[in-house]
Amino acid sequence: MSIEPVRVALIQMACVASVAENLDHAAEMVRQAARDGAQIVCLPELFRAQYFCQREDHRLFALAESIPGPSTARLSAVVREAKITLIASLFERRAPGIYHNTVAVLDHASAEPDNIAGLYRKMHIPDDPLYYEKFYFAPGDLGFRAIPSSHGPIGALICWDQWFPEAARLTALMGAETIFYPTAIGWHPSEKAEFGTAQYSAWKAIQRAHAIANGVFVCAVNRVGHEHGDVLLDGMEIQGPGDHTPANGIEFWGGSFICDPFGRILAQASHNQEEILTATLDSALVETTRQHWPFLRDRRIDAYANITRRMLD
Amino acid sequence: MSIEPVRVALIQMACVASVAENLDHAAEMVRQAARDGAQIVCLPELFRAQYFCQREDHRLFALAESIPGPSTARLSAVVREAKITLIASLFERRAPGIYHNTVAVLDHASAEPDNIAGLYRKMHIPDDPLYYEKFYFAPGDLGFRAIPSSHGPIGALICWDQWFPEAARLTALMGAETIFYPTAIGWHPSEKAEFGTAQYSAWKAIQRAHAIANGVFVCAVNRVGHEHGDVLLDGMEIQGPGDHTPANGIEFWGGSFICDPFGRILAQASHNQEEILTATLDSALVETTRQHWPFLRDRRIDAYANITRRMLD
Repeated sequence: MSIEPVRVALIQMACVASVAENLDHAAEMVRQAARDGAQIVCLPELFRAQYFCQREDHRLFALAESIPGPSTARLSAVVREAKITLIASLFERRAPGIYHNTVAVLDHASAEPDNIAGLYRKMHIPDDPLYYEKFYFAPGDLGFRAIPSSHGPIGALICWDQWFPEAARLTALMGAETIFYPTAIGWHPSEKAEFGTAQYSAWKAIQRAHAIANGVFVCAVNRVGHEHGDVLLDGMEIQGPGDHTPANGIEFWGGSFICDPFGRILAQASHNQEEILTATLDSALVETTRQHWPFLRDRRIDAYANITRRMLD
Repeated sequence: MSIEPVRVALIQMACVASVAENLDHAAEMVRQAARDGAQIVCLPELFRAQYFCQREDHRLFALAESIPGPSTARLSAVVREAKITLIASLFERRAPGIYHNTVAVLDHASAEPDNIAGLYRKMHIPDDPLYYEKFYFAPGDLGFRAIPSSHGPIGALICWDQWFPEAARLTALMGAETIFYPTAIGWHPSEKAEFGTAQYSAWKAIQRAHAIANGVFVCAVNRVGHEHGDVLLDGMEIQGPGDHTPANGIEFWGGSFICDPFGRILAQASHNQEEILTATLDSALVETTRQHWPFLRDRRIDAYANITRRMLD
């Protein structure tokens, strides 16, 4: 498939307590990116709220919404107006008691409701101190996908997925030549001095490695700013856990980046401010890179079956 | 399995035309590493000769040898004397017409012939200009293994294997907590200025990523020096291809390194000289890292079956 080079923009944004304000702010940053020439725009994970998974609170399921639903309705208007493709990470209410951490790809050319070209539901769900996602999200059941768009098939994986080579591999084998990673990852203030550099370095290295192993572009977009997880939704106010001091909460590390199919950094964001990060991705480089580094040719598909085992003991 | 911290040494060496000299030199560097306290020592890929796969020449099959054979006999004497575990990469003659690029793990405590605790046969075989390995080596048929040693199970993969996340994953699932990568990789002189930095960076990133994804130590050991592929074996002299000028051949980039289960560099070698690179690896860090970054817990083994497909089209 021959595709024209495409301009992508990653929205590295900060989130406040008010859900309405976050949605307004996201829409405005997406419009700005489009005015600057972006054709595919990607928002960070669950940008509509502060990262609420810092605790387990049943009231927060009120944040979930259907897809299509209010957020996709709002964003699809922006998508049609700006004639873009938008990757939006949402808290999906699929059925009572079944909620997902889901990406919707909205494409201006899609004839589906709210221009939804496809969904991906987060397959790998974390559960760690301040990241209690297994409480909120059922594991995805759509598998790994390449979602059709005006600019060819797009891969979208979500945050914790980025630590699993299998997810990137299967998404690439589905035909995606670019993988987006909407993300919400940060430092625990008490750990930053000792582990902060190594954590960011590992996060970046493993995603560059997905680009290299699969010969695909990788676009990782993180939120930024210190959050305590406060949520203000339709007049309902839910405070985040613990003292609201700098010693608590999560300092989201920003550091969004775009790399090419050999892991070379094309664009790099800071750790401490909102940014619209852009690059032009040329599909021709995927094929050239794979010709020069023919890993997909040499995979030993006869010998990988045990990948489906937990442990080979 | 609780295992004492172990001192490892990687032999970053240069190779000359004479096979006899390379074997002597390797044995001496291994002895030196052991004198300095190393308990596990790893040699680079096919250290017994210059990298002969720069061309396809049937005469070079004369380099192959049985395992056990002359090289393992020679090295096992060193292993017993120094009471070490040695990872040796050899050109294996298994049967007439079946040759492999093979690692033998020699352990002083092994009761097997030549102290051979186990073999691994390179599963992923490259074929690129100056790296014509598919001509010489049949693909490995032993799968991915953890080889028992006096210091617990050891993973050994070989060079091109390092670009395949599946290889590291399966080796780790077999129980290896350290993966060694004997390697022969370098720059084409004509490409070094434009691509050299990116190539070394990609090589290092993807191996660090294997450490991170699997929570294992990774020890990558490369040869160093500019080679034209000349071979001198038992009086037989075979010149490498092309003019023996700096514009031809391969400049092996050294740069061996050891990283911990979160991808942190513990030891780093230079690009231009022989070195014995050492670090102490503590198995306890594998478990701690996996508790804090529980990727093995969250793998979606129900959703990976298509990894055994060439392409999902």
